[in-house]
Amino acid sequence: MTAPFPHHYDVGLRWNGARQGTLSAPPRPGLVAGPPPQFDGQEDWWSPEHLLLASVNLCLMTTFLALADRAKVRILAYDCRASGTLDKMPQGLVFTEITLKPVLRAGPGDQERAEALLQTAKKYCIVSNSLKTPVSLAPASAAA
Amino acid sequence: MTAPFPHHYDVGLRWNGARQGTLSAPPRPGLVAGPPPQFDGQEDWWSPEHLLLASVNLCLMTTFLALADRAKVRILAYDCRASGTLDKMPQGLVFTEITLKPVLRAGPGDQERAEALLQTAKKYCIVSNSLKTPVSLAPASAAA
Repeated sequence: MTAPFPHHYDVGLRWNGARQGTLSAPPRPGLVAGPPPQFDGQEDWWSPEHLLLASVNLCLMTTFLALADRAKVRILAYDCRASGTLDKMPQGLVFTEITLKPVLRAGPGDQERAEALLQTAKKYCIVSNSLKTPVSLAPASAAA
Repeated sequence: MTAPFPHHYDVGLRWNGARQGTLSAPPRPGLVAGPPPQFDGQEDWWSPEHLLLASVNLCLMTTFLALADRAKVRILAYDCRASGTLDKMPQGLVFTEITLKPVLRAGPGDQERAEALLQTAKKYCIVSNSLKTPVSLAPASAAA
């Protein structure tokens, strides 16, 4: 059951020296993070840009799975790529667009309903709805 | 040096069964993730809500460190807590506010300039600027 609203969430960050820090929200595993290579960072740690896309990507999936569960639509496979473009705009550097490309496979006879539920999930996605950046859903394709 | 704009970022997500998936952006370590306990998930994996706060928190630090580096302001310690409130609004469930509470210690004589740079970093933070949610910076306090 969903906990009563409002919800409160907290994440700590401690600088480790150089350009890197550790994100923490115990008991979750700590996450070493810093700028991406595009901003003079390293490709082996998570960056703000990647974490934002991770959040949007995951939010669609968790919302979708909750809806599918409620609708008794059986999901067999789900995979999704989130792609974002960062560009200079009059107001500064921002994400100008984010695209989600889900690939899903539902139980026999459930594929169409599952794809419709993805659209509903997109509409209720907390993270997308908290962004100025337009988030678009590329048409779902069935997994092989 | 910053790579020419626009930048493109990608993050994959593969469902593992139940309510959990693995986020991937190789060669970064894969990240097991799912809904938070507030939405019937588990507290030992990263959630969309925690990843969004992680992104905002990290973006302030990486922007701040880049500015401090350019201004030759020496930073000795930096720690920051990001707190977010999620609530029901007319448009649905959204993050209604995010607060960042940085605690920093700069080199001798640099504390005041460092704190001013934090305000500038907040202004240029790519992730905050991509959000509808108001992000506020609690006054920086010196680390003990």
